[in-house]
Amino acid sequence: MNNPPNRKPAVVGADLYDPMLEPRYTDIATFMRAPLTSTLSNVDIGLIGIPTDLGVTNRAGARHGPREIRNASSLMRTFNLGLGVNPYRLCRIADLGDVRFSHRYDLGKQVEEIAAFYAAVHAAGIFPVSAGGDHSITYPIFKGIAAREPVGMVHIDAHTDTWGEFFRSKFTHGAPFRLAVEAGLLDPHRTIQIGIRGGQNFLEGIEFSRSHGMRVVFIEEFAEVGVDRVVAEARKVVGDGPTYISFDVDGLDPAYAPGTGTPEIGGITTLDAQRLLRGLRSLNLVGGDVVEVVHHSIRPAIQPSWELPLCSRFSV
Amino acid sequence: MNNPPNRKPAVVGADLYDPMLEPRYTDIATFMRAPLTSTLSNVDIGLIGIPTDLGVTNRAGARHGPREIRNASSLMRTFNLGLGVNPYRLCRIADLGDVRFSHRYDLGKQVEEIAAFYAAVHAAGIFPVSAGGDHSITYPIFKGIAAREPVGMVHIDAHTDTWGEFFRSKFTHGAPFRLAVEAGLLDPHRTIQIGIRGGQNFLEGIEFSRSHGMRVVFIEEFAEVGVDRVVAEARKVVGDGPTYISFDVDGLDPAYAPGTGTPEIGGITTLDAQRLLRGLRSLNLVGGDVVEVVHHSIRPAIQPSWELPLCSRFSV
Amino acid sequence: MNNPPNRKPAVVGADLYDPMLEPRYTDIATFMRAPLTSTLSNVDIGLIGIPTDLGVTNRAGARHGPREIRNASSLMRTFNLGLGVNPYRLCRIADLGDVRFSHRYDLGKQVEEIAAFYAAVHAAGIFPVSAGGDHSITYPIFKGIAAREPVGMVHIDAHTDTWGEFFRSKFTHGAPFRLAVEAGLLDPHRTIQIGIRGGQNFLEGIEFSRSHGMRVVFIEEFAEVGVDRVVAEARKVVGDGPTYISFDVDGLDPAYAPGTGTPEIGGITTLDAQRLLRGLRSLNLVGGDVVEVVHHSIRPAIQPSWELPLCSRFSV
Amino acid sequence: MNNPPNRKPAVVGADLYDPMLEPRYTDIATFMRAPLTSTLSNVDIGLIGIPTDLGVTNRAGARHGPREIRNASSLMRTFNLGLGVNPYRLCRIADLGDVRFSHRYDLGKQVEEIAAFYAAVHAAGIFPVSAGGDHSITYPIFKGIAAREPVGMVHIDAHTDTWGEFFRSKFTHGAPFRLAVEAGLLDPHRTIQIGIRGGQNFLEGIEFSRSHGMRVVFIEEFAEVGVDRVVAEARKVVGDGPTYISFDVDGLDPAYAPGTGTPEIGGITTLDAQRLLRGLRSLNLVGGDVVEVVHHSIRPAIQPSWELPLCSRFSV
Amino acid sequence: MNNPPNRKPAVVGADLYDPMLEPRYTDIATFMRAPLTSTLSNVDIGLIGIPTDLGVTNRAGARHGPREIRNASSLMRTFNLGLGVNPYRLCRIADLGDVRFSHRYDLGKQVEEIAAFYAAVHAAGIFPVSAGGDHSITYPIFKGIAAREPVGMVHIDAHTDTWGEFFRSKFTHGAPFRLAVEAGLLDPHRTIQIGIRGGQNFLEGIEFSRSHGMRVVFIEEFAEVGVDRVVAEARKVVGDGPTYISFDVDGLDPAYAPGTGTPEIGGITTLDAQRLLRGLRSLNLVGGDVVEVVHHSIRPAIQPSWELPLCSRFSV
Amino acid sequence: MNNPPNRKPAVVGADLYDPMLEPRYTDIATFMRAPLTSTLSNVDIGLIGIPTDLGVTNRAGARHGPREIRNASSLMRTFNLGLGVNPYRLCRIADLGDVRFSHRYDLGKQVEEIAAFYAAVHAAGIFPVSAGGDHSITYPIFKGIAAREPVGMVHIDAHTDTWGEFFRSKFTHGAPFRLAVEAGLLDPHRTIQIGIRGGQNFLEGIEFSRSHGMRVVFIEEFAEVGVDRVVAEARKVVGDGPTYISFDVDGLDPAYAPGTGTPEIGGITTLDAQRLLRGLRSLNLVGGDVVEVVHHSIRPAIQPSWELPLCSRFSV
Repeated sequence: MNNPPNRKPAVVGADLYDPMLEPRYTDIATFMRAPLTSTLSNVDIGLIGIPTDLGVTNRAGARHGPREIRNASSLMRTFNLGLGVNPYRLCRIADLGDVRFSHRYDLGKQVEEIAAFYAAVHAAGIFPVSAGGDHSITYPIFKGIAAREPVGMVHIDAHTDTWGEFFRSKFTHGAPFRLAVEAGLLDPHRTIQIGIRGGQNFLEGIEFSRSHGMRVVFIEEFAEVGVDRVVAEARKVVGDGPTYISFDVDGLDPAYAPGTGTPEIGGITTLDAQRLLRGLRSLNLVGGDVVEVVHHSIRPAIQPSWELPLCSRFSV
Repeated sequence: MNNPPNRKPAVVGADLYDPMLEPRYTDIATFMRAPLTSTLSNVDIGLIGIPTDLGVTNRAGARHGPREIRNASSLMRTFNLGLGVNPYRLCRIADLGDVRFSHRYDLGKQVEEIAAFYAAVHAAGIFPVSAGGDHSITYPIFKGIAAREPVGMVHIDAHTDTWGEFFRSKFTHGAPFRLAVEAGLLDPHRTIQIGIRGGQNFLEGIEFSRSHGMRVVFIEEFAEVGVDRVVAEARKVVGDGPTYISFDVDGLDPAYAPGTGTPEIGGITTLDAQRLLRGLRSLNLVGGDVVEVVHHSIRPAIQPSWELPLCSRFSV
Repeated sequence: MNNPPNRKPAVVGADLYDPMLEPRYTDIATFMRAPLTSTLSNVDIGLIGIPTDLGVTNRAGARHGPREIRNASSLMRTFNLGLGVNPYRLCRIADLGDVRFSHRYDLGKQVEEIAAFYAAVHAAGIFPVSAGGDHSITYPIFKGIAAREPVGMVHIDAHTDTWGEFFRSKFTHGAPFRLAVEAGLLDPHRTIQIGIRGGQNFLEGIEFSRSHGMRVVFIEEFAEVGVDRVVAEARKVVGDGPTYISFDVDGLDPAYAPGTGTPEIGGITTLDAQRLLRGLRSLNLVGGDVVEVVHHSIRPAIQPSWELPLCSRFSV
Repeated sequence: MNNPPNRKPAVVGADLYDPMLEPRYTDIATFMRAPLTSTLSNVDIGLIGIPTDLGVTNRAGARHGPREIRNASSLMRTFNLGLGVNPYRLCRIADLGDVRFSHRYDLGKQVEEIAAFYAAVHAAGIFPVSAGGDHSITYPIFKGIAAREPVGMVHIDAHTDTWGEFFRSKFTHGAPFRLAVEAGLLDPHRTIQIGIRGGQNFLEGIEFSRSHGMRVVFIEEFAEVGVDRVVAEARKVVGDGPTYISFDVDGLDPAYAPGTGTPEIGGITTLDAQRLLRGLRSLNLVGGDVVEVVHHSIRPAIQPSWELPLCSRFSV
Repeated sequence: MNNPPNRKPAVVGADLYDPMLEPRYTDIATFMRAPLTSTLSNVDIGLIGIPTDLGVTNRAGARHGPREIRNASSLMRTFNLGLGVNPYRLCRIADLGDVRFSHRYDLGKQVEEIAAFYAAVHAAGIFPVSAGGDHSITYPIFKGIAAREPVGMVHIDAHTDTWGEFFRSKFTHGAPFRLAVEAGLLDPHRTIQIGIRGGQNFLEGIEFSRSHGMRVVFIEEFAEVGVDRVVAEARKVVGDGPTYISFDVDGLDPAYAPGTGTPEIGGITTLDAQRLLRGLRSLNLVGGDVVEVVHHSIRPAIQPSWELPLCSRFSV
Repeated sequence: MNNPPNRKPAVVGADLYDPMLEPRYTDIATFMRAPLTSTLSNVDIGLIGIPTDLGVTNRAGARHGPREIRNASSLMRTFNLGLGVNPYRLCRIADLGDVRFSHRYDLGKQVEEIAAFYAAVHAAGIFPVSAGGDHSITYPIFKGIAAREPVGMVHIDAHTDTWGEFFRSKFTHGAPFRLAVEAGLLDPHRTIQIGIRGGQNFLEGIEFSRSHGMRVVFIEEFAEVGVDRVVAEARKVVGDGPTYISFDVDGLDPAYAPGTGTPEIGGITTLDAQRLLRGLRSLNLVGGDVVEVVHHSIRPAIQPSWELPLCSRFSV
């Protein structure tokens, strides 16, 4: 690519400059210092914030996730040592801003508005990488991008998120993948859930996952067999069909990601999470998200799920 | 059990409701949402707070441990995925409140008052699970429950706690297991100490442990052989005699349990701690405790030692 | 009163003891160490938690307010030096627990459930003192206690909370007093709003307050004339009709109450807030609340609004 | 003004929207939600970040100030209750981004680069409001905007910042106003320094201020006479000549602005600071700054100095 | 004084240097950068740490006070603007280190060891300024320095600390001034207690103060009459007899001194505390202390009580 | 050694006492409680602080590192369980205080002043163990101690620190080992860099390391082969020539060392770091450092690199 998309005019003087090369504490905080755009044209990968936590069942705060992640992602740089690529040279990456809502107190309406946004992004041929927001956002993302063909999924999380109604709402952050399967948007046989653990009041969620054919890797199995065999299993499960990566930061151990709303001890390290994501490169990816980051996150803890979706699609 | 013990009358309306099924941030904070009782009748497992830190040698604060643990344990739910059991269906679990003291500035008197409390609990046939307080509480617990027969112990800690007098007191948190051995309450040959590390000014504590026949698993050995072999060793050491589990949270690495008074780097992860505790299921357990939790603990870090004592006694 | 209501049986031994006299870090955290009751009988003052923040417009977290306030209020003791009374000797005070909800994602339904709860409390002749939750709770409290006769109000806050619909909901925390006036539950001519300040996007809220006859004391006036004259003005405005006190902790300066969702600099000190509340003693009070306390509040900052409602009703 | 400058195109859909009216946690963080511009055209007030702390003598961190202030200023809204104006309707306000540097380890070079930037801004007729950065930035700002005529100054600070060389540098944050006087950029007879206090190793700074005719209002005088008389004094000192406002947040008490590098107890409250700034309205202002905000500032504490420069210039 | 006592040899090179003139973050942390001495000779003012919190009734932590204060006091400099003196030029000031204890779990023994230390300091003609530790330390300090003649006292605190036995100990931090009066070490008629407030379970402490003739300035009176009249009252009460200043940081509002064990809202500001202390200059002072500073104090909050004892004795 | 060097005279009484045996929160904070000396005589191991962060490229703060490490190291005790030695019995260890600077704003001058200090230490035959400060300090340390013969190095870090000029300075913390190789002070063929990871804008640093023959162990390799094989590789690379250990705490995962200026997720655990350092015992060591510790570090996280340099030199 001849024209690095990241150049900006300097407000004083006639120069162009590249925010990525400036000290990390300077300039406006966009996702990974990518240019902020107000159009869907000329974008290969779109970074999108979804600032809502209306769907949580415990501590709220993920509405602040997009801004926190924009700030934290200033620490990233262009060349990814782990993957050996510079995605900014391979494709046009832009920050598309936040999904806007006209309703803020109605989960059902939010589902519609998110779905409409992603349908437009999808129609523009953009690969979406999203920053939640709580996990309830993934179901409407699927409505926007998987309407024609169900996707497979690599899902990293402490919880299966396949539960039913909670306090009279079916759209909470405990339910997106049950809804997606029921709507024919997610193929459970091409779905793997990694890092599952913690207490439950009902087993219906886990039973839904299993009875519909999802592969559930509990944390005990993860610790037993190690990350490399989990990667192999994930690649086998999703195959070469269209695949989505959904990364709930509570899949990580709270020592690594304390700023999340429903923490569970005994989770994955960031190093294993990076190895897991990088192991998925060159799959047929169609999108990804990182969710459940709340305001007081320790900032370095929220990078891992961003790595792969960006890089794997374009590297060969 | 037909009558789940956890139902409470609603103050408005005629309903019963179950606090365990309410959102986690609601209701009065009892240990693991168990009902608070003011009697020793009809209780199988008693959860007890011992709010004192008079015995510490460095930073104080564990007097706030019972309240902090009550708050944190609201995140727990009934069904334990790791063990595959719902202990609340298997037995009657209650929060017995805190041990009360008439002295607050005299370690020797505290020993007597704690011992009297646990003798009554023991006489009532209740399995005690205790929340410290500092580690000095375990010696008087033994006085209450092991008077007739010495117990074995699985002890997770950075320190052996078998030291002698410190600044003119023999009852500090560095001494409970020396006292217990000397009083014939703890069988050192059926005792294993796991996670030991850190600097020492004197070696007398470690020498006491070894010369009396305790099995000391230093952290280097733990890292070398892995948690599964440590579990096997622990089961071999304690055998099928009556066994107590004592979990000092400074056995965990400070990254997982920063809120403790004498932290030592290079410790156990919460995931390994869970695997260790769950590996002990179906031993002949007689009680357990988690100690040295201070006020500013990151809350998710204090769950692990609670798991096993509850579940293993009643599962087959 | 012969029978101090605060005695509890000790779980071990036959004694009664008084949690109020135990060290502050011990025992179960109820509101101000009052006994937890599961009935509306024999209660003069009922302390009630309303754990919801569904109505906020910025940072959430006030759902954790009741538990945070229960913990913090352990620092209180029986005799109030500022007022010269021991309310526990004057009346029967109890913690009624939390309002329970069957819906958690529908503001309109929450309004109904809160209103029903307070109607029952009111019918039982109990004086309610409530801990939010966000400020949206006060409108349904009024529905429960002011159905027969509109109340007057002393309202301490940075915002007038008389705005209209926000993102398609009319029940947010910016609207309770517009709703209450429109429903005939609040008498605007007997309402004073103290501490108002900060930026606005629209002036409709302030215009509503003024055009309906509320007395708005902006922070500039408060600083100009001092707390004593504001007290006199408040007493004049509310007169001797039934009066409610609503205390939003963001009326305090963020230096005193940082843990709130919509902080505004330039607010009231806690000392002035105490003087203000104590200046209202012997009014014809019918209830009070403290709202918008979130999880990470510095604990000492949340005491002031609790003082007066308790004491003033029963002191002569 | 017919065309509110703050409208932005939505990335999905054909609407314009106004970030100021969106919930405060959404959208890209620019200074006070003003539009980010890459040109000096069509701007009345330019908000500018200067991310450097190379000049500090104690704790560094003010390099993060511009980003922290951008985040915090999302809490602001259009209409200023205290002043009774909506500045966004009166003039065109834009975020000009950060001053860029080609040197990062040479205070003398930074002076040149900042001066060049402000000369361009000044030449474009823009009123600059700057976010430091440490206080060393104000001297080069003066070089850019006061080259033709020395300015007067209202200076709020714990320190006079009129010291000489410190560890072999004359450009530190303790020196800007000595440099400015010596360069003929600042008129000491039209300068008032408010809030001065704390310990000193040498008295040369204070002696410089006094011997050159600056009016020094020590905090003791401020407390004695009150903010209204200090406002009157400030207006008298600066008169109707061109005047700059420089607000070092350590002028505030550390209870209000803990996140600064050289805190001194016994300072000004935010309420008094607001009253002070608003008292300066309709002076002949030429610019202003807020400096010494570091990364861990409590966010609400950093608003006051922004108020006046924006509003006073355009209000009548 | 010709020989500034603060010079130290540089470890490399042959120079002397003065730690007070080095950047504040450098060098070993002694109290106010004074030289650390190991002898009682050639010292006029001795700064002494007493690292114990065995006497507290709520949160512990003041054992870390001396170290925290040593660190924080690095921010001080030689010349005190408020008083207009450089005490380091007027007298020889040294850090005497910490009182050492041979007992750590016995309040009675600590009383003896502290008393012996201060008797030696007193015999050497040194003016002691002490850093607690909890407030139980002041009684034994009096035993060391007031054995021949009872002292008067200016006492700043939220509590009168004239209570009786607490949980079977009479030496707690709630009792020092009752003990001192009863032992004839403190003259209650020359004692003023400033800032008293908060809840009480018993009134015996306040009744003791009043019935023995102490002047109790409740916070309400302080707010009513202002600091200048309180200063005048204090000077009148203590007269020209030997007088001690005891400053409990919980006399300050928790917004200014959050890191203390028994905070009470509605307290004094640091600015008023400075004005109060400076108002006491040229009294016949014999010693002073600052107590109840715990580990997590915001550092700038702990300076005020150090100012006067140092300066007032030697200035005329 | 007959005379333990750590005894100090008590200021009151005629005793000697040993700070190492006092409770950890007492006494002046020197490095690891070693005696503070003002001479280079009679010292085997010298502990040295270098309080500067002028060389950082992102967040500053490491200027506070020496003081933070002195405080934290109070938790250490004499006997090292992991190594089985008591270094204080084997050699004379002293805290030499901080390197003093006459320039504070000129990286080039700092290089000269640090180099001169270490040349003197080296000439005195002292083994230096240094606490940064940012990583720019290691190049001048090498100038002081490796002038006659280049050293080999075991380097633990997230970054290779072999970059070139950054914003017009060649002396930043990204450059020390390029400078050292170019000056003939560091033998790249005897250098191993362990834990390297994270994003890059340019690959020149890594290319410099590789093309000059350094052994770069990326974190992926570390995770793959395990710490024991990395130890073996390190011993092979450095051989028996003079070797330096440089430990940048950002080599650790941010969960273990959050208080550092350029954190990178996916790092080493403290347990592995201890095993790595202890694996290096009995190498031909000539010095070591721990760098990039900033003010808000969690204190237990900064111990590991101190262990080996002390112990390995003197154990056989």
